Amino acid sequence: MINQLVEKIKKTQAPIVVGLDPMINYVPKHILDKAVGEQGETLEAAGEAIWEYNKGIVDAVYDLIPAVKPQIAMYEQFGIPGLVAFKKTVDYCKEKGLVVIGDVKRGDIGSTSTAYANGHLGGVQIGNKKCYGFDEDFVTVNPYLGTDGIKPFVDVCKEEKKGIFVLVKTSNPSSGEFQDQKIGDKPLYEIVGEHVAKWGEDCMGDSYSYVGAVVGATYPEMGKVLRKIMPKSYILVPGYGAQGGTAKDLKPYFNEDGLGAIVNSSRGIICAYKQEKYSEFGEENYADASRQAVIDMKEDIASIF
Amino acid sequence: MINQLVEKIKKTQAPIVVGLDPMINYVPKHILDKAVGEQGETLEAAGEAIWEYNKGIVDAVYDLIPAVKPQIAMYEQFGIPGLVAFKKTVDYCKEKGLVVIGDVKRGDIGSTSTAYANGHLGGVQIGNKKCYGFDEDFVTVNPYLGTDGIKPFVDVCKEEKKGIFVLVKTSNPSSGEFQDQKIGDKPLYEIVGEHVAKWGEDCMGDSYSYVGAVVGATYPEMGKVLRKIMPKSYILVPGYGAQGGTAKDLKPYFNEDGLGAIVNSSRGIICAYKQEKYSEFGEENYADASRQAVIDMKEDIASIF
Repeated sequence: MINQLVEKIKKTQAPIVVGLDPMINYVPKHILDKAVGEQGETLEAAGEAIWEYNKGIVDAVYDLIPAVKPQIAMYEQFGIPGLVAFKKTVDYCKEKGLVVIGDVKRGDIGSTSTAYANGHLGGVQIGNKKCYGFDEDFVTVNPYLGTDGIKPFVDVCKEEKKGIFVLVKTSNPSSGEFQDQKIGDKPLYEIVGEHVAKWGEDCMGDSYSYVGAVVGATYPEMGKVLRKIMPKSYILVPGYGAQGGTAKDLKPYFNEDGLGAIVNSSRGIICAYKQEKYSEFGEENYADASRQAVIDMKEDIASIF
Repeated sequence: MINQLVEKIKKTQAPIVVGLDPMINYVPKHILDKAVGEQGETLEAAGEAIWEYNKGIVDAVYDLIPAVKPQIAMYEQFGIPGLVAFKKTVDYCKEKGLVVIGDVKRGDIGSTSTAYANGHLGGVQIGNKKCYGFDEDFVTVNPYLGTDGIKPFVDVCKEEKKGIFVLVKTSNPSSGEFQDQKIGDKPLYEIVGEHVAKWGEDCMGDSYSYVGAVVGATYPEMGKVLRKIMPKSYILVPGYGAQGGTAKDLKPYFNEDGLGAIVNSSRGIICAYKQEKYSEFGEENYADASRQAVIDMKEDIASIF
């Protein structure tokens, strides 16, 4: 799957992933009203509304980008109907030829991590049949529990040719509270980064590993160091746009081949119609605003090479 | 909810939580065959089977214990039908008067953590209605992202009078890889423990805080230190039984009032019928074996006081 991701990035010339993180207040009125009209003020209506909203965006941008990253929390907040919308979104994006990164940040130990890995990347054996739960292409994983928590994901990745992105340095203001703590002369995130490189060694694609890393756009100096520590790991970069990261900040996350990083934008794309810059599109044409925002983001990022 | 948990622990005289972590190979043949007979070798059959299996156990033990801890990964592995079984299990346990700790180990930032907190502990506003997704009483939370990731949970806990258990020192063999790394003269888990105490300060129940901690039974020396660092935090202790922790190891996790800790056992209870000790019950009577295992665990833990 990492080979497929790299290929699609080359083909679209867009090291970009669109974060499908729907909040109910992002959903245009006509979509929400229709869902509530049909199903009342229920979780079911919310699930239907975010799915319709997503579908509109995916239809408008799928030819421009290699991948999407649905954040499962935004679906899980609506309980089962929300997760049904997540599953529909994953399936639809795959149909459209997009690589799907499930932003699930799971992480547990032993058999529990195996269960998450099977639920999201692999399958479970039921009698003689192998059945697939959510079946994303990549997921994000939390490293706090150590190798025990990561290895089950790596095993499933090898079997299914899928991939993970391990949280190394997150984009949020308080990420340093634990991640920047000095262990001897190195911050914790560097030690985690060294583990990422090691975990990825024995599951290499053509040029990059199945094991990637999450490093926030908001910490470019750290991105530079981590790029060197994990040369074969793709870096998934959140924090561009709404969170404050700029194109200039992104350069250190890429290798000299112009590859090695993929930059996420969520709100900036899916909620573009609410920005003054794109307000001419109007709420009804929210998806066209998202398309224009993707085109602008591609240009912005292309400017650093 | 922490008050309710403490009260139920006193009433049952059992600082015990039963981990409802169903694996498909734990489910007795008669239950699995029935489900597969009705729905084929599908995720739906798996979901139905684990729900029936859980229900049997809950019916057999609910009067003996204060709380259950379903591990969501074991449901999530079966996709949507598995999560339907999770939701049914949560609802049923609450009907039976049990406190439900969702072992979800979620953790993200800002609005994403809020979404998880709303999905599992609080509700979401849809039009004029507040709707609840999974609605557990407590959840476990991963601290790697720092205060940004925890605060949204604490806010929802205050509003809904619910609680969280933050991962501090996990029970698995490689938990030390990052958690034991020395920051100056202190290991990382102590620093996380200090944060837990601080996060819990302004959301106190009668004697314990809404913010508890997870500390594995397999590291009693560390449990002793952490007990002192977080005197007002309830400690959820995994790793007893199948993972190697013994009753003797548990003493340091409790305060002098005999409170302050709740010990989880999963496999040891729900899969008791597969142990030689309980084999006389037979597979059909798996729930009676679980009841006996709970009685034995209560006795074992009572022996340390």
